[in-house]
Amino acid sequence: MTRGSLFVVSAPSGAGKTSLVAALLESRPDIVVSVSHTTRKPRQGEVNGRHYHFASAEDFLGMVQDGAFLEHARVFDHYYGTSRQAVEDELTAGHDVILEIDWQGAQQVRRLMPECYSIFILPPSKAALEQRLRSRGKDSDEIIARRLRDATEDISHYDEYDYVVVNDNFDLALGEMESIFRANRLRTRSQMQSYRSLLDELLADTSKTP
Amino acid sequence: MTRGSLFVVSAPSGAGKTSLVAALLESRPDIVVSVSHTTRKPRQGEVNGRHYHFASAEDFLGMVQDGAFLEHARVFDHYYGTSRQAVEDELTAGHDVILEIDWQGAQQVRRLMPECYSIFILPPSKAALEQRLRSRGKDSDEIIARRLRDATEDISHYDEYDYVVVNDNFDLALGEMESIFRANRLRTRSQMQSYRSLLDELLADTSKTP
Repeated sequence: MTRGSLFVVSAPSGAGKTSLVAALLESRPDIVVSVSHTTRKPRQGEVNGRHYHFASAEDFLGMVQDGAFLEHARVFDHYYGTSRQAVEDELTAGHDVILEIDWQGAQQVRRLMPECYSIFILPPSKAALEQRLRSRGKDSDEIIARRLRDATEDISHYDEYDYVVVNDNFDLALGEMESIFRANRLRTRSQMQSYRSLLDELLADTSKTP
Repeated sequence: MTRGSLFVVSAPSGAGKTSLVAALLESRPDIVVSVSHTTRKPRQGEVNGRHYHFASAEDFLGMVQDGAFLEHARVFDHYYGTSRQAVEDELTAGHDVILEIDWQGAQQVRRLMPECYSIFILPPSKAALEQRLRSRGKDSDEIIARRLRDATEDISHYDEYDYVVVNDNFDLALGEMESIFRANRLRTRSQMQSYRSLLDELLADTSKTP
């Protein structure tokens, strides 16, 4: 079984990351998204182990102590984190694993798994970004302005990533995402696992005929 | 203009490299193959500057002295080499440049341009390789056996390359080659050139409203 790779995917809110990743998973069954741990309560319809691993604050903080998380963060009153073991199990099973996290989480993951790859998704223009942020609800101009500032802060970290995809045309951006994952599978380190027996056959010494 | 990347493509004789590269150039006009210098005489139909840059041995060896070649080799009585300046001009013009050279040439290029990428193409089996080597003409078993040994020697260097493509199904292998070049264009270093004005717009400080 060829070991998978870990990919971090980040984007400012409104860049269309969630839709792109969902479409990528549709087209590529060997890619999975890591299920996060969280201390917040399940919302209606959320299934433990599928949408999140729901945990008590005590259990979560115990896992933090044990170094069980690749990355974790506190957002308002709740904790969110990515379990190292869960990621490791998927990689060993041959799946590429996507973490949808922000630049702070990406920095944590790069420290612990420097062999990961990271992709930053950009909106096609500031106007498009603002429009997507506005269309989410009837928020005040003040809130929209704050979201735009947050997005600008997020985007300022794009150069810490290995790849940049601009989500202008959705299908084109999806094709670009696919090519990044496809090309990664062609790296020598991966191919020498996938084609071990072919390589053994090709490299067998043919000069020693009986 | 976004600078292109240099790609070295190697394969044992009989792996189908030439056909794959030709098909890749058909599908991607921003990729070019470097035109080599050689001291051998033009064959019928060969055009100077298109098939080769034909040079005298004196001129060629002068260029070697001047460090003008990214790689060069003597094959029987003739010299072959890749001019640094010709490659640099294509890269600056925004083209990805392919060098179809062997593993010795690849080693020379990596020393001078460590930022290059390299792809090794494998045949799908030893039987397929032998069949392709046989179908080239009515050669003796001895010559076929020597070619197979040479191919084995070439293949033993596959792990010096960044990517490995197995040429079993031609269209699949072509798609894999395309994805390597496409993903490479999505690297942050390349995208920050391609999207300089978008990034300037997105990163402009919006908090300073007049």
